[in-house]
Amino acid sequence: MNFLQKLRNIQRKHNSLLCIGLDTEVAKVPEFLYAYGDPQFEFNRRIIDATKDIVCAYKLNVAFYESVGEHGWYTVHQTLARIPEEIVTIGDGKRGDIPNSAEKQALLLCEDWEFTGVTVNPYMGKDSIEPFMKRSDQCAFILAVTSNKGAKDLQYLKVQGRPLYEHVVKLAKKWNTKKNVGLVVGATRPAELKRVRSLAPEMPILIPGVGVQRGDLESAVRYGCNTKGELAIINIGRSVIYASNGNDFAEKAREAALKIRNQINTYREKYFR
Amino acid sequence: MNFLQKLRNIQRKHNSLLCIGLDTEVAKVPEFLYAYGDPQFEFNRRIIDATKDIVCAYKLNVAFYESVGEHGWYTVHQTLARIPEEIVTIGDGKRGDIPNSAEKQALLLCEDWEFTGVTVNPYMGKDSIEPFMKRSDQCAFILAVTSNKGAKDLQYLKVQGRPLYEHVVKLAKKWNTKKNVGLVVGATRPAELKRVRSLAPEMPILIPGVGVQRGDLESAVRYGCNTKGELAIINIGRSVIYASNGNDFAEKAREAALKIRNQINTYREKYFR
Repeated sequence: MNFLQKLRNIQRKHNSLLCIGLDTEVAKVPEFLYAYGDPQFEFNRRIIDATKDIVCAYKLNVAFYESVGEHGWYTVHQTLARIPEEIVTIGDGKRGDIPNSAEKQALLLCEDWEFTGVTVNPYMGKDSIEPFMKRSDQCAFILAVTSNKGAKDLQYLKVQGRPLYEHVVKLAKKWNTKKNVGLVVGATRPAELKRVRSLAPEMPILIPGVGVQRGDLESAVRYGCNTKGELAIINIGRSVIYASNGNDFAEKAREAALKIRNQINTYREKYFR
Repeated sequence: MNFLQKLRNIQRKHNSLLCIGLDTEVAKVPEFLYAYGDPQFEFNRRIIDATKDIVCAYKLNVAFYESVGEHGWYTVHQTLARIPEEIVTIGDGKRGDIPNSAEKQALLLCEDWEFTGVTVNPYMGKDSIEPFMKRSDQCAFILAVTSNKGAKDLQYLKVQGRPLYEHVVKLAKKWNTKKNVGLVVGATRPAELKRVRSLAPEMPILIPGVGVQRGDLESAVRYGCNTKGELAIINIGRSVIYASNGNDFAEKAREAALKIRNQINTYREKYFR
C-alpha cells in the first residue's frame, strides 16, 4: 500500500491527525521504570499501548536513541515492533548526504528500522535525499519551515522575491513522482503553513511544534489540512508523554492525547464540514 | 587547546593537509579480515596504523557505522581510540535540529564519541547547530557548497544577487565567535571554493570530493588554503582506503595517501612559497 493510502486509512479509522512524538529521555521517565532493563523502551511500550487507538502516527527523533549508546539501536527496533502495522511511524533524523552516504543513512532508517516516513534536509538537493524515496510505501518529509527560532536564518531569505522555503516546496512537488514526498512545517508558523498548503494541496504535512514549543493547534488544523480536513500530521511530544511523572503516566498521557485528538477534530468540524 | 591551534599544529608537524575518509564498508574490506570479530574496525585499525604520521585528520561518515547495527557505535569508539590524540577527527553526520534535539545529536558526536570536528547542515539556522559549537576545542563545519550534483538545487539560488551559499558563509563568520566554526566546500567546485576562501580567509575548510568524485586536487590546494598554505583539510576516502583489496591493503593505502600528501605539498610550494 502506498504511503498516502496508509496515512488516509489510519487517519480515518482512528479519526485522528495526532502523531505522538516519542522523544523519550531516560532522565525524564518515572522512577519506577528504572527497575526495568530498558526504561526507555518500557516507557515507550506503555505510552504506545495506552494511545495506539487514538493516533495516526508515532514519531521518534532518532537522536534520543542514538545518544544513549549502542542499546538505542535495539530500543528503536523494539519500540517499532510494538506499534501496530497500520500506524504510520516517522524516523525524525533530518538526514541527507551525498548519494553514496545517504544510501547508508537510508539503509538504517528505511530498511533496518523500516520507518514508514523519515525527515530529510533539503540543503544538499535531490540526490542527497533520493535514497529515502525509493519505496512508494515510505515517505520522505522534506524540511520546509521549521519550528525553531533559527528557521529565519536561511528559510526566509528571498529568492526571486519569494522566501527560500517556497522554493523548497516547489522542488519537493517536482520530486514527488512516486507520491511519497511530504513536507515539514512548524506549527509556530501558521501564515507559512497556510502558504505551503496552498502550494501543495495534496501532500502530507508533518507539523511539529504544538505543545511545549507553543505552536497554535487551531491554525495547525485549519491551515495544515487539505480541503477534506486530512493529510496534516500534528505531532505533540513532551506535553503528552510527560503529562505525569507518576505511576499513572501512561493513563495521563492517554488523557492528554485524547484531549488533543478531540480538540483537533473540533477544529476539523469547524473548518472542513 | 582550541581547534584552530590543534589543526595548525598537526598540519605543520605532519606537513600534511590530508584527511583520510574512513567510510568503511564491510562488503569492501579484504576477505581475510572477515576472520576478525569486527572486520570494519580491523580494517580501520590497520589503515590508521599505516597512515597516522602523514595525515592531519581522519573523517568518519557516521552513516557507515550506524547502518551496520548496534555494533557500529562501538566501532566508532574503538576507531577513535586508535587515532593519536594530536590528530583531528571529524564526525561527518550533517546534523542539525531544533535545540532540544540537536543537544542529543551533539551528546553523541561531541561528548560520547568526542570527535574534534563535526559537519552540520545550516538549513535550520543558528540555534540548530549551536550545541555543536559549545567547546572551543571542537569545530562545527557548516555545509556551504557540497560536492554532489544536488548542490545546485538550493545552494546556488540567488539571494540579493548572490548565491545562497555565500549567505551561509557570511552567517558562519558571524556565528564564529569562539573561533570554532569551519566550512565544507566540495573539491568539485573550484570557483566556489575560491570565492568562499576569499570571504572567509582564516576559517578551516573541509574539502571532500577529491578522488572517486573527481574533484580537482590542484584547485583544492590553491583555492582552499589560507595565504600561508594552511587550514584546508583535504579529504580523500575511497581512492585511498580501497587502493588494494589484498593482504597488502594497508601498505597500498599508505602509498596512495603519501602520494596525495606529497602532491598536495607540491601545489603548496607552487602557490604559497
